Amino acid sequence: MNIICLDLEGVLIPEIWINFAEAVGIAELRATTRDIPDYDELMQFRLKLMDQHGLKLPDIQAVIDNMAPMPGAYDFSQGLRRDYQLIILSDTFAQFAQPMMRQLEWPTLFCHELVVEEGGRISGYQIRKPDHKRATVKRLQELNFKVIAAGDSYNDTTMLGQAEQGILFCPPQNVIDEFPHFPVALDYVALREQIDRAISQF
Amino acid sequence: MNIICLDLEGVLIPEIWINFAEAVGIAELRATTRDIPDYDELMQFRLKLMDQHGLKLPDIQAVIDNMAPMPGAYDFSQGLRRDYQLIILSDTFAQFAQPMMRQLEWPTLFCHELVVEEGGRISGYQIRKPDHKRATVKRLQELNFKVIAAGDSYNDTTMLGQAEQGILFCPPQNVIDEFPHFPVALDYVALREQIDRAISQF
Repeated sequence: MNIICLDLEGVLIPEIWINFAEAVGIAELRATTRDIPDYDELMQFRLKLMDQHGLKLPDIQAVIDNMAPMPGAYDFSQGLRRDYQLIILSDTFAQFAQPMMRQLEWPTLFCHELVVEEGGRISGYQIRKPDHKRATVKRLQELNFKVIAAGDSYNDTTMLGQAEQGILFCPPQNVIDEFPHFPVALDYVALREQIDRAISQF
Repeated sequence: MNIICLDLEGVLIPEIWINFAEAVGIAELRATTRDIPDYDELMQFRLKLMDQHGLKLPDIQAVIDNMAPMPGAYDFSQGLRRDYQLIILSDTFAQFAQPMMRQLEWPTLFCHELVVEEGGRISGYQIRKPDHKRATVKRLQELNFKVIAAGDSYNDTTMLGQAEQGILFCPPQNVIDEFPHFPVALDYVALREQIDRAISQF
């Protein structure tokens, strides 16, 4: 009775905001939680930039429609769904994720939602629950699942700590340095091996 | 932030034990909780019958491999996964469900597990958590999801009662009579309409 919880961006799909920043040529939009760890601060910064440049939800969705999961992500996630259960825990928004979820054949995704005005202006966002990744892992454990969690960034580390086994996937060096107790996997083969090994030891 | 929880057998796929009983021609295997209300007693009865007839896990899996989801179940479940999030809550066992989950393109499934010996003999079973359907809905609500739950039978009614909206799908008359406060849907079109209507009123 094992469940795998994966972060989305940086683990299965590219960083949406970085790709959007490149597509529209606004360098400041490249900031992620790797740069601004406080998530609300980061989001308010992004939404303000969107407004300043007159960019709306359809502009981002047009970019996402042209994005694909990372090479190997489809097969990796399908293998997990065949052998275990998979829930994706992400700090992205449902409106952004949908085109990528379709390409991944609709794995279960817990994330947040944008507040969108008529006409497409993003006026704000609704966080499903603070620190929802860790909270979700905890609730799954209360349902007698053993949880393996993998993510790449700061906002994954509480989830990784709560899980029976947390694994860092292709993290930046500062996250490795700050959280040296988590094993690191640098590709899907290694990540899958670490997941299988952890489960065999439960 | 809505999530749909569906029972499996009788909602998306046919009853596994009944189909297995017919395939192997052992009438006693058709027994359900209507005949033997105590679930553990029923399962021990089934496992003893399996042993007496020399039947092992691969024999059941061969039957399940030839079963298909109920007509319309694939499109119905795909539609829910596109528009909301879907988790299937079932009292079946992971080893039985896998061939059907593949046909449904691996929706997330929370269920129980068989204890299987080398060689395939089923020696017992492991319940993930008592009343796990209701418990799961409760945990999802604690994660700030609003939950719509649908099922066909007695063992779904605590889940239906816990959800923001419970719906009976093609239930037997005695369940309708005993739980008259739950709306009833008799096909997927009606079930989908009731789900959408409930969510529009949140």
